[in-house]
Amino acid sequence: MPTSTPFILTVKAVLFDAQNRCLLLRRSAANRHFAGCWEWPGGKLDPGEDFASGLHREVREEAGLEIELAALVGAMQYEMPATHVILLCLEAHPLGTAVRLSGEHDDFAWVPLEELGCYQFTPGVGDFMLDYAKRKRTTP
Amino acid sequence: MPTSTPFILTVKAVLFDAQNRCLLLRRSAANRHFAGCWEWPGGKLDPGEDFASGLHREVREEAGLEIELAALVGAMQYEMPATHVILLCLEAHPLGTAVRLSGEHDDFAWVPLEELGCYQFTPGVGDFMLDYAKRKRTTP
Repeated sequence: MPTSTPFILTVKAVLFDAQNRCLLLRRSAANRHFAGCWEWPGGKLDPGEDFASGLHREVREEAGLEIELAALVGAMQYEMPATHVILLCLEAHPLGTAVRLSGEHDDFAWVPLEELGCYQFTPGVGDFMLDYAKRKRTTP
Repeated sequence: MPTSTPFILTVKAVLFDAQNRCLLLRRSAANRHFAGCWEWPGGKLDPGEDFASGLHREVREEAGLEIELAALVGAMQYEMPATHVILLCLEAHPLGTAVRLSGEHDDFAWVPLEELGCYQFTPGVGDFMLDYAKRKRTTP
């Protein structure tokens, strides 16, 4: 249906370490929503920021890591009270694995894709993450 | 694989008219690549431009139409000589159907999704378009 609610872009990175485990961060109590849920690093673009720069910045801020973008994971849409959010997600390689969290998260884990199902994610996005993990494990 | 080739974002809109036909534009001989191929309106973002503004601008430039964004179609990646291109595609509703082409295109057509297979598209993107059409027709 047509709508005048604005669309905004959020970017997320799936970072893999040398053991092919991806980085999950746990949302701290500092978040108004979904504290305790796990997520891939990333977030909203700043005004005027291109998606690749935003992804580098978010991963630097949230995990203290520099990254090299690798390939598209996919995109999904979810609804917030005042915006339609398009989530664009890319695989990336971290240059180092020494994670340094911001106040937004209070824990992190490097998790094999086959164990993603053991973690609690934010509604909607979790299905997208698990679907990706399933496709990734079955595609050579 | 890691790479230092930059990633850029291209946006495309699937515009539906009242008969549920989508707008295709034919690339003119003014294009260095893929002249004669059909495509959905859209293109690369300008520096500092957010994806929604870029989509409105591209559709205005290429088809002379104002639009209302509706929902995510999906995303795909394709390779250009010097860039990885992420194509992000949204459904949109045109405010009017009086198409005015730019020099980039030399013909247009409003096409039912079940007839997309009759058109020649650029390599890679065509599969993405046909896959969307198939999903769209089978999802209530």
